[in-house]
Amino acid sequence: MIPESLLDTLLLDEGGSIVLLIMDGLGDTATAETGWRTPLEAAATPNLDELVKEAACGRAIPVSPGITPGSGPGHLALFGYDPITSEIGRGVLEAAGVDMEITPRDLCARANFATYDKHGIITDRRAGRIPTEKCRELVAELARRIPNIEDVEFILKAGMGHRFVAIMRGDGLDGDLTDADPHHDGSPILEVKAARAEGHKAARIANEFIARANELLQDERPANGIMMRGFSKTPAIRPFPERWKITSASIATYPMYRGITKLLGLNVLATGETIADEANTYVNDAANYDYVFLHVKPTDAAGEDGNFDAKVAAIEETDAMIPTLLTRPPDVLCVTGDHSTPVTNKAHSWHPVPVMVRSRVCGADRLERFTERHCNSGSLGIFPMMELMPVLLANAGRIDKFGA
Amino acid sequence: MIPESLLDTLLLDEGGSIVLLIMDGLGDTATAETGWRTPLEAAATPNLDELVKEAACGRAIPVSPGITPGSGPGHLALFGYDPITSEIGRGVLEAAGVDMEITPRDLCARANFATYDKHGIITDRRAGRIPTEKCRELVAELARRIPNIEDVEFILKAGMGHRFVAIMRGDGLDGDLTDADPHHDGSPILEVKAARAEGHKAARIANEFIARANELLQDERPANGIMMRGFSKTPAIRPFPERWKITSASIATYPMYRGITKLLGLNVLATGETIADEANTYVNDAANYDYVFLHVKPTDAAGEDGNFDAKVAAIEETDAMIPTLLTRPPDVLCVTGDHSTPVTNKAHSWHPVPVMVRSRVCGADRLERFTERHCNSGSLGIFPMMELMPVLLANAGRIDKFGA
Repeated sequence: MIPESLLDTLLLDEGGSIVLLIMDGLGDTATAETGWRTPLEAAATPNLDELVKEAACGRAIPVSPGITPGSGPGHLALFGYDPITSEIGRGVLEAAGVDMEITPRDLCARANFATYDKHGIITDRRAGRIPTEKCRELVAELARRIPNIEDVEFILKAGMGHRFVAIMRGDGLDGDLTDADPHHDGSPILEVKAARAEGHKAARIANEFIARANELLQDERPANGIMMRGFSKTPAIRPFPERWKITSASIATYPMYRGITKLLGLNVLATGETIADEANTYVNDAANYDYVFLHVKPTDAAGEDGNFDAKVAAIEETDAMIPTLLTRPPDVLCVTGDHSTPVTNKAHSWHPVPVMVRSRVCGADRLERFTERHCNSGSLGIFPMMELMPVLLANAGRIDKFGA
Repeated sequence: MIPESLLDTLLLDEGGSIVLLIMDGLGDTATAETGWRTPLEAAATPNLDELVKEAACGRAIPVSPGITPGSGPGHLALFGYDPITSEIGRGVLEAAGVDMEITPRDLCARANFATYDKHGIITDRRAGRIPTEKCRELVAELARRIPNIEDVEFILKAGMGHRFVAIMRGDGLDGDLTDADPHHDGSPILEVKAARAEGHKAARIANEFIARANELLQDERPANGIMMRGFSKTPAIRPFPERWKITSASIATYPMYRGITKLLGLNVLATGETIADEANTYVNDAANYDYVFLHVKPTDAAGEDGNFDAKVAAIEETDAMIPTLLTRPPDVLCVTGDHSTPVTNKAHSWHPVPVMVRSRVCGADRLERFTERHCNSGSLGIFPMMELMPVLLANAGRIDKFGA
């Protein structure tokens, strides 16, 4: 990547439009278990096959060879940020993902209900996955009973199932904190500790909140306690529209991805729950934006489940939405993923992600299909994902010549 | 490469086993002189052909494009160290390679016998490649007659043929020294000079040692003098097993590679002189190690000699040893080289080295053969060799997810 200060001098204020179509966890692997095919190879993708003939292709390494990214680093790289130096904390991501406003004074944490035995040992870190409705009820009760501790305000919001988000709002809530969550059943909750002296106040108040919540919940079943983790503050990241000089919108069904893009300064558009809903949102509501991020989740979920057929189906469903997208064709269309989630791994992985970039000037590699193996021999090479953004901008005519 | 401090937080203490099978100088080039084939293309390699079908492939750049590595940098990169910032001196390598103990006070040098004419001009830098037995005799004589100079102890050990190693042990032996070896016949020996003031003592004593040795040897024929080069101290390198959190063993027939791996903290296993001996050592003696380095030398020697057929034969001999290795199959098998030694160059070169990584989760590129050209279109891409180690660890399930 060229230095940001140099890039600033080259970025133009206007140019073509860009759509980044992300199939989450798209990349996969041919293994003995998959019959030596990948879901992209097995899927019927007539629309992707048509697009790829006029596209430049390659494979993107999200973070670094061998390094498996979480959703945060994977998306930071897609948006052209260095995923190693620009980390966004999990608590902040979650808070943004449930549409909470976050201020620079806030310390955000992921929280959830859990089941403790009478000795204080965690027997179920998910409290039997209580229904979302029950979660909302318990969160409302905690919010009513513990509005603040010392001068720190607590703002709580229920998420899905047993999960909720806690924002601690006050002065002097600095520093890295350790998780209260031991990350496995059979242990007592951990004391939150500060990595540096500046974090002592935040750690003390977090521990106090957990103690008071657990006391209030002691007669509940199965959610007789809480846990907290991923304490973090807003990242010091230059907003996406300013960094890349482009108006931008985000279309995503999942809170996490709405949250990431909101944190980065994209306009998050309201949409429905299906891939087709997202395509319609693009056609109807995204006309004023030069860059549109469109996020498809089911590919990742299928990979995590190790469900080959479900991943194939998610790819085919996405492929079927492409004609709708093309009723309002962008100047640059990029199809890729944020990382690989191979069916064989049943988890995120380090494998490079197939990428296609299609524009009038992309320089077509004339590949026959859009698969991992075809992309291996494309003109984009096997490249760091954070370099994708300049390639998209170049295809949109948004980067000036460097040097005379 | 992600920062070492971050990698530290991601590395797991356990996971699968890894075998790194190195054919030294493996990479080669198709040129007019080779009939546009590489030795890998010409060789009959049924076992490699079988492995590659289930492997992820690519080509590794040892140091940087266009930079030809010596054995030290090539191996440092294979072991995941930055070969530019982690240089190991040649004298240290040689000392380790002949099983000498090296302490932090020591200044190590490669030395060898040479032939001088009556005017002090070097007429043969290798003293007619005197037999190893003769070398031992002369080294013993030097050791007896020059046990120390000032307060610096001299510890000498004979190597193969005309070569020996000199360790200068004492305080204040710091600084970079120039070679006494002019690196070609027809010149007088050079005065050893210090690059910095801290090296003046070491330079003075090295020059004194050479002068006294040459006086003692003046009536010998053909070895009537010595030369010294590659003055160096132990490198400040984090030991391999600690850096990568993995137990490790090294199997190599050549002193140089035993030396490098010993310096890096691998357990050097005793083995025989043939490739088959090395395979048997792996099967019989390496069961307690999660990472095994297995080094095959004859490919490099054939390349240096410009002997195409010998390089093909060395590759075929290595291929034939693979079924033995697979009687104790590792979770991750990587086959590659430390650098290229093209037959046409008759020397080490900068060309990227073919790599295959085979594991249950590697993501097979389904290539037909293991050759330079096939590897060009593999999913590992054309990548820095120092990134190979994280890829191997990822395939062994030894690196945690980065970010949420």
